[in-house]
Amino acid sequence: MRNYWDFFSTERIIFGNGSIQRLDAALKSLKAKHVLLITDPGIVKSGILSRVEQLLKSWEYELIVYDGAIPEPPIEKAVECFEFAKSQMNIDAIIGLGGGSSIDLAKIVALLLEHGGHPRQYFGENAIPHAIAPLIAIPTTAGTGSEVTSVAVVTDTQHNIKVGISNNFLRPKIALLDPELTVELPPYVTACSGIDALAHAVEAYMATDFKYIRAEGEILFQGSNPISDTLALQAIQLICRNLVVAVQQGANIEARSNMLQGSLLAGMAFSNAGTAAAHALAYPLGGLTKSPHGELTGLLLPYVMSFNAEAQPKKMRSIAHALALPCDHLTNKEVAALVVRKVMELLESIGLPTKLSSIGLKRETIPEVADSALKIDRLIRNNPRTPNRDGMISLLEAAF
Amino acid sequence: MRNYWDFFSTERIIFGNGSIQRLDAALKSLKAKHVLLITDPGIVKSGILSRVEQLLKSWEYELIVYDGAIPEPPIEKAVECFEFAKSQMNIDAIIGLGGGSSIDLAKIVALLLEHGGHPRQYFGENAIPHAIAPLIAIPTTAGTGSEVTSVAVVTDTQHNIKVGISNNFLRPKIALLDPELTVELPPYVTACSGIDALAHAVEAYMATDFKYIRAEGEILFQGSNPISDTLALQAIQLICRNLVVAVQQGANIEARSNMLQGSLLAGMAFSNAGTAAAHALAYPLGGLTKSPHGELTGLLLPYVMSFNAEAQPKKMRSIAHALALPCDHLTNKEVAALVVRKVMELLESIGLPTKLSSIGLKRETIPEVADSALKIDRLIRNNPRTPNRDGMISLLEAAF
Repeated sequence: MRNYWDFFSTERIIFGNGSIQRLDAALKSLKAKHVLLITDPGIVKSGILSRVEQLLKSWEYELIVYDGAIPEPPIEKAVECFEFAKSQMNIDAIIGLGGGSSIDLAKIVALLLEHGGHPRQYFGENAIPHAIAPLIAIPTTAGTGSEVTSVAVVTDTQHNIKVGISNNFLRPKIALLDPELTVELPPYVTACSGIDALAHAVEAYMATDFKYIRAEGEILFQGSNPISDTLALQAIQLICRNLVVAVQQGANIEARSNMLQGSLLAGMAFSNAGTAAAHALAYPLGGLTKSPHGELTGLLLPYVMSFNAEAQPKKMRSIAHALALPCDHLTNKEVAALVVRKVMELLESIGLPTKLSSIGLKRETIPEVADSALKIDRLIRNNPRTPNRDGMISLLEAAF
Repeated sequence: MRNYWDFFSTERIIFGNGSIQRLDAALKSLKAKHVLLITDPGIVKSGILSRVEQLLKSWEYELIVYDGAIPEPPIEKAVECFEFAKSQMNIDAIIGLGGGSSIDLAKIVALLLEHGGHPRQYFGENAIPHAIAPLIAIPTTAGTGSEVTSVAVVTDTQHNIKVGISNNFLRPKIALLDPELTVELPPYVTACSGIDALAHAVEAYMATDFKYIRAEGEILFQGSNPISDTLALQAIQLICRNLVVAVQQGANIEARSNMLQGSLLAGMAFSNAGTAAAHALAYPLGGLTKSPHGELTGLLLPYVMSFNAEAQPKKMRSIAHALALPCDHLTNKEVAALVVRKVMELLESIGLPTKLSSIGLKRETIPEVADSALKIDRLIRNNPRTPNRDGMISLLEAAF
């Protein structure tokens, strides 16, 4: 039994409509003058980049922009961006502006700017000796929570797999969240990223208690603890109450703000507690179906919750309670069914798939998916119901 | 109207029974070898110091100990400790071990070790240019939350007043919370510090919304925001459920652990949202009655809640809900009465005074107390019901 938990935080979170104006104060607090901004073509096209550029120039920062981030960026992109940046000037702060991919790329460039070397050196956990270069993360989607997490996901093109660099030093120094930057996000992206945030929150909340995680020594994902629980449950409530409106009525700034809060809290929670089976399964499924990450974690979520319900009956009831589902006189089984149905309805309302068969998975690959997922120990050990091969196969069959 | 909020955090929290064993890992993460430990005579007498000293020696740290901390330490103590420490060796980490006073003293010494000068230079807000020396805070009471806050309170003996140094750079780098260190705390100290933690949580939760705080520019206490609300409400629940057992059955480690969690969450909340009228009134009352801080904030709390109830009816209902008080068909007024009565009963159960007359206040000093409190703008502006002189006097009359 483990007798302690750690909770790591981003030191400073700035949140509010129009808070992009606070970027100057944020940069000043880092004593930064020479700034590297990392973003992607979508942010260029939306006009967000030129707005931020104008602000930075009006405040007289020296700025270079790298706008080549792409989803699940290949390692080479990080190296390219790093080489580009260091050849130009001495950078004293990095801004990651965009979805999770831009922020993840910015994390790796901040790592390389401080420690040199090649991203490959830092794969896995605990391979970063001390702080990375000062990083400000500005998310434009409500989903990954990358602005406050310890994880950066890249693609290892050499081996054609997604690889995570996970380390508490990867947390951005400052997270700046301006809901106004998210209003133009199209419905499908809003749906995928929002449901992924819900999966983070639910998996962190339902995760095995920190006491019962089977691992020795320092681990990054430590199972649920009282702080992650508090934040995750609040995230579940915010996301379930606001995701449909954010998808169906993108300009609704209250819904957007609540979604951004929800994904932030979910990020704070899961980057300490960890995620579990839905995320473990999403890795091999992503390779096979090429579906976006959020579509997969969202699709799997109700089935995983159903699979885990009996291992965390109190927490299922707390979720029901947070969602105002009336369950005073219901059995644990009935409560679980109610919550799972609610998540399923949410998926339907936002137009996401609810069956693996509908996204092109072949039934005969199910055992292979189960086997691959079971190998991801850092996520699997967080799953409150210890999954074996048969269990995972039956879970996938239910979701097929 | 203010359109954003900031949330500042301690980067790392370590929590658990026996987690004092994690001090080695904490120091290693700071790359520390030469350690200054600041504590007080109570911790020496309890045997906690010698236990921690033994651990540090077994891990081969170079250690110097300053055990002269006293409640509400005079500025001179900080200067004395700083001079003592710097004459001996190059310190690369400071440990504050004890109640709020030891930790506050350690904050100021960490400030001086990094920036030099005299504590007087740093009074007020925002006078610290950048990070202080690396500080690990290890609380032995569940009360002040100082292990995660941005505030250090000292006594300015020259002017005979309590003075706060408030700055986000004062937050300890690491907070290490081991409930086992709190089990020997006597009932009265447990009661005073625990009820103070409740006052932090309630005042942070009920504080004016960040949008409506009347202040320009950068402020430390920013009113309530969604994260501080989430943490504060959880703290209220933990403290109200566990304080009586912690006082009446000190060895109950679950109650102690929950209290330590509660004071931690309250510290995270109030150091961002701020406290309000109960704390503003406790300053002048402390000068007049010499009662301990927690006795005063606790005594005032139900009267302040009653005074503020109509300005935050939804939040009063959420508190009632968190405390499992049945209030489905009650009016706002009835809910408020129920919550206030609950807090009053809590005070009685833990043997703390509930009337200002019983702690030696003279009735004729009430207007003077009201006037002094109203001058503490950074707290008064957080109070959800804008207090005027008549209001404060009637509040104090009710509490007399």
